This record gives sequence, structure tokens and C-alpha cells, in this order.
Amino acid sequence: MFTLTVRDHVMLAHSLPDPFFGPAQGLHGVTYVVEATFERPDLDEHGVVLDIGAAGQALTDVLGRIAYQNLDELEEFAGMITTTEVMARWVADQLAGSIDVSGLGAISVVLREHPDAWACYRKALG
Amino acid sequence: MFTLTVRDHVMLAHSLPDPFFGPAQGLHGVTYVVEATFERPDLDEHGVVLDIGAAGQALTDVLGRIAYQNLDELEEFAGMITTTEVMARWVADQLAGSIDVSGLGAISVVLREHPDAWACYRKALG
Amino acid sequence: MFTLTVRDHVMLAHSLPDPFFGPAQGLHGVTYVVEATFERPDLDEHGVVLDIGAAGQALTDVLGRIAYQNLDELEEFAGMITTTEVMARWVADQLAGSIDVSGLGAISVVLREHPDAWACYRKALG
Amino acid sequence: MFTLTVRDHVMLAHSLPDPFFGPAQGLHGVTYVVEATFERPDLDEHGVVLDIGAAGQALTDVLGRIAYQNLDELEEFAGMITTTEVMARWVADQLAGSIDVSGLGAISVVLREHPDAWACYRKALG
Amino acid sequence: MFTLTVRDHVMLAHSLPDPFFGPAQGLHGVTYVVEATFERPDLDEHGVVLDIGAAGQALTDVLGRIAYQNLDELEEFAGMITTTEVMARWVADQLAGSIDVSGLGAISVVLREHPDAWACYRKALG
Amino acid sequence: MFTLTVRDHVMLAHSLPDPFFGPAQGLHGVTYVVEATFERPDLDEHGVVLDIGAAGQALTDVLGRIAYQNLDELEEFAGMITTTEVMARWVADQLAGSIDVSGLGAISVVLREHPDAWACYRKALG
Repeated sequence: MFTLTVRDHVMLAHSLPDPFFGPAQGLHGVTYVVEATFERPDLDEHGVVLDIGAAGQALTDVLGRIAYQNLDELEEFAGMITTTEVMARWVADQLAGSIDVSGLGAISVVLREHPDAWACYRKALG
Repeated sequence: MFTLTVRDHVMLAHSLPDPFFGPAQGLHGVTYVVEATFERPDLDEHGVVLDIGAAGQALTDVLGRIAYQNLDELEEFAGMITTTEVMARWVADQLAGSIDVSGLGAISVVLREHPDAWACYRKALG
Repeated sequence: MFTLTVRDHVMLAHSLPDPFFGPAQGLHGVTYVVEATFERPDLDEHGVVLDIGAAGQALTDVLGRIAYQNLDELEEFAGMITTTEVMARWVADQLAGSIDVSGLGAISVVLREHPDAWACYRKALG
Repeated sequence: MFTLTVRDHVMLAHSLPDPFFGPAQGLHGVTYVVEATFERPDLDEHGVVLDIGAAGQALTDVLGRIAYQNLDELEEFAGMITTTEVMARWVADQLAGSIDVSGLGAISVVLREHPDAWACYRKALG
Repeated sequence: MFTLTVRDHVMLAHSLPDPFFGPAQGLHGVTYVVEATFERPDLDEHGVVLDIGAAGQALTDVLGRIAYQNLDELEEFAGMITTTEVMARWVADQLAGSIDVSGLGAISVVLREHPDAWACYRKALG
Repeated sequence: MFTLTVRDHVMLAHSLPDPFFGPAQGLHGVTYVVEATFERPDLDEHGVVLDIGAAGQALTDVLGRIAYQNLDELEEFAGMITTTEVMARWVADQLAGSIDVSGLGAISVVLREHPDAWACYRKALG
């Protein structure tokens, strides 16, 4: 089994309005360092999992929709709690919708919120 | 499938008294950089795998039991060879006993002993 | 010449309301990974630059004043543009006011805003 | 399930002579930071996945066959496109042939070509 | 004193045709992870050392001149030994010629050739 | 001004028998990730600061004298408090005695004891 991973980052503001989140209830922000991993049982005719340029561009484009934004004000996330786990799933879902996933077995997205904590969502395909 | 990872570190001394370990047979020491990963098929009602604060505190508490210690002198490890692999399993077992694991599918623990070597143990739950 | 460095991080929101900053004019956020370095020509009577525990606690305390905050709403930064460079200087100034700087030659603070960009301020002492 | 990982690196030149690869079609080069991970359901009689010294030496030896080489001129890769994915598989295959794999479940090899992109191949054993 | 650093990377081939360099005499390649640091005694009117976007673009543009190239075939480096140190100086010189250096005290360039070795050149300005 | 840095690591045990060090008074251990930096105003006749192979070997040899040792039992450190700062100076002094320092302006040694703390000693030469 093969995987290809591309990495980028995004800076944004949000709040987690649930007493469960303690000090993170208020409006604050984060730099997410984002790793998107694409799985493929076999290589394609070019000997790769995916065109690395296309993979990187897709990730950059997806992150561009939330870069320098306040998630609390985006229609896209209305009524949602934008935890790191939820945002990892959102990035994976967006990637699945913007690249050709034929032949891929899964997309995983890691969001690192600081050096000592990160979350991941693995989206099985096909 | 979702995962949440928290990271911490611990400094300790130990020996590996088996000729198999060559120069590491004598008393020496290590900084373990420790990553604990919690797996959950679905998010809980707060939209997370686990309360990140609770996860981090549990890891810090477990590591506190061995921090600045000489493992060779601890009852806990009497008669054991405290290899990196064995210590990864010990941390995972301790974590499983100190947090609420309901809903979790597994706990994995990575122990990095230096930049060029690390070991991991994955403990399946339920 | 000796230095001691401690590292921590902080997550916050802010805006940079000047057209110069393009997309960063709006309210967004950041994780700053913060490195505080203390310089000393000679070691003290304990053979250190500074008590590492005290240094780490001082940094954590300073960052605690802005953690999970929106800088735009803090009195402390009223009328200021809170660029990474400006915040590095603020952290260095706060540290100089909260530890015993006798014997120290300088305090430097690095603020990493993402893996590909960081700023530093070096505050000469005495 | 346990894993042990050792890390090393290698510097080499190659070309990817297919229009698919754009600017990488010409002769260029890369530093691959290489992580080799060995999986084992249970620990061996020494309480490890593998002798870490033997694992590291095996990786160094495999990488030594391509270090400071131009892959385009090596018999070994004649007629092949030496993408990162293909080279990850090559390293895993070579490792499987040079260590005692009894008891191991898989060997995975990650090749990091720069901080923002890497590929992995997992070779199931037995 | 303030500094701003931006980071990028470049992949290229070259040889070091001098017996002094042992196995690196032959044609091989490298990924340089490049950090460019700009020093300024005081901040400019925007509260920064330099426009971070302009700094990053300048670095990307400079590296673009050698990306995916074989340095041995470039006019620019004819008759030169392209060691890491020499290339760090070349990048710093190019940056000094492509940005507005008024107010800057120095440009430093770090080239990391693998995780365990790097070189730096500091170019004093003004 | 040019610098060349090589990196290695060492694992050892020691104690810091002074109440000032709290929990680190007892016998414990550490992995030091060690960076040795050599400064040179100008490049030598090969276009380098130092032969990188010789620099790396010198660092490995110096660290080999303390690798897998208990510093408390070594003659070399009798009567000394082996803080990170003191050990950084020891490594720099040993390096200065084991390489040809002609032409070099300084040797700096960073010892990283865990991801959030490190110390450095800069030894001016000539």
C-alpha cells in the first residue's frame, strides 16, 4: 500500500462556545499545520499515488476558503462546533470533492494546532 | 475514523542488563518524547475524540510516575527489561487505566528516544 | 557566552488593520510557538544561566496574559499593530520585568507563526 | 502491535523523464530523509521488535547503494521511473531481503523529499 | 534588534569535483531547506522588519533560478565549487539584489542539506 | 561570516546533587541532541568552513566519550555539576582540542535536552 502526503498551513480565528472547552470558549485563533495523505493500493501509470502538484494545489485551494477568516462568521460552519477533529473531517471532505479520487482507498487529514497536540480524520473512499 | 494525539516528554535513567544490548547494558539515560494517540470511530457529543485537556493531563500524570527516576530501582519494573517498546506498552496500559475509554477503539503510544529512533505500541480496546 | 532557551506556545486572535497586510487585515488567529533565550556571559553559582523551572514558568505566565484572547480587545495593545515582530518585543519586555535579570546580557524572543515564517526580538540588558 | 522505526537520509540525483512531471523531468536531485518502520505483533525474547543497531545498519547499508549516485546511470533502475513512491518500495524490498524478517508483520518506508511532501510504501510480510 | 525569517526549499543536482569531497565528487543531488533572515535595528512604519509576503516571494524567486537544475550546467556557477557554504552566500547575494535593503542591517541564509548538517552565510549590509 | 553546523546525539545518566535542582537531584538521564557550529570569517581553499566529514566525526568521537555512561562515575566530571550549560561548554572545549581550529573564529555547541529546553555555549577562538 502506498501513500502520498502534502503539507500546508492556515491561520484563522474561531470560538468553541460550549463550557466544555473552558478558556477556548472565547474568540481566539490558531495556526493549523495541515497534512493531507492519499492512500492507493497500487501506483498509477506514472508510478505515483497522485500528481504531487495537483495534490498540493488542491490542499492549498481548500485551505484558501478558510485562510485569515473567522469561522464563526462563515455560512459553511453555521451551527457547528469547529473543533480540530471537525475541521480535519471538513478538509478531508473538501479534498475528496476537489480531486479525482478514482483508485484512491482513503484520504487522511492531520491538523496540528500546536507542537503538543493534533487530530486526524481518515475518510475511507470507494 | 478520528484520532487525537497529545505529546509530552520524560527524562529517566535505566539499564538494559542483557549482552544483546551492547553499550546500553550499563546504567545510562534517555529523554523520551512521548506521543499518545486516542482512536474513536465517531466523535462524542462535544465534537471531539476526548477532552484534550484531560488527555494531556492523563499523559503528564502517567509520565510523572517515572520522571527523573532510575527505572532499575522502581518496584513497578522489577524483573523487566525496560526497552523502548516495553515502556511504550507500559504508558499505553497506564493511560487505559486512568481515562474513560468508553467509545475509544485504541490507544497508541510512540516513544522517541532520539531523532533517529522510536518505537510504538498500539493497544486495541473494547 | 552561554544561553538557555525555553519554549512554549500560545493561541490567540487579532487583526492587522492596515491595507499593507492584505488578507491579514481581517480578524484571524495564530498559534505562536515561542522560544525565549536568556544570555549570560558566565554561569551563576549553580552552574546555570537561570533556573530552568523559573524561566519556563515566567514564559508560561507571560503567555497566559494573552492566551485564548482577542488582542484587538485588550487594553494592553490599544492603538498598536500587533505584528509578530511587535509581539516578540512585548514578550521580551514582559519577561525582563518578571524575572531577576541581574547577570543577564540579553533576552531574545522568537515567535514562530507557521513552519515557514518567524520573527525575533533581542533585548539587550544592563 | 509494536513498531520500531529507524531514520537515516540519502542524497542523490535522478530525472523523471515523463512530461507528466513538468520541471522534474530534467536531471535534478534530492535529499531523502528515510524512516523505516518494522511491525511485530509481539515482542521477541529480548523485549524488542528488532535489534535497533541491526535495523539502523541495514537501513544505512541499503541507502549506501544509492548514496551520492545518479539513479539514471544505475543498472538497478534501468527502465524505471524513480518517483518517491517507487523508491520507497525499493528501499522496503531491499530491507526485507537484508534482515531476518521472521516474526515481522510488515515493513513500511517513508521517504521525505522536502518538508512539505513525502511518500510511504508498506510491504506486508508473511 | 529585530529579525524576520522566511523558509522555503529547493531541489537540485550538482557535483563537487575535488578529491577533498570524497563520494560527493560525482554528480548527486540535494534538497536544500532554506531560511532567509533579515535583520533591522528598528521596525519600519508598519511595525515590521519587512513585508513578509515580499520577503517570501523574493526567496521563492531566487530559488526558482536553480530549482530542478543541474548546477554544473549553469553559466552562473561556471568554475565554482557549489558547496553548501558557497550556495548560502549566493542566495544571500541574490536576495540583497532583489529586495529593498534600506534600513536592513544584514541578511543571513541557512541552507540545510539534511537533518544533521547545515551551513549559514551572514551578509552585513550598509 | 560563514558557519557550518553538524548534529548528533548522546544518551547518558547523571544527577544534579544540589537542592536547587529539585527533582533532578536524583540519578536520572537524558538524550542530548547536540549541534556543533563552527564559525569562519572566510571560506578555506576548498570553499568550505571545515571538512564536513571531519567535523561530524569529531563530534561523534567527543560524544562517544560520554555515550551510555553515568557521568557521576566518570573521573572527567568529578566534583562538577553536569548541567546542560556545563556539558555544552565541555563539548565545545573537547572539539576545540580535537580539530584544527586555525582560521576558525568560534565554536558554539547547543545541547537540546527535550523539545522545550536547550542551552548553548559559544567559545571564541584565536
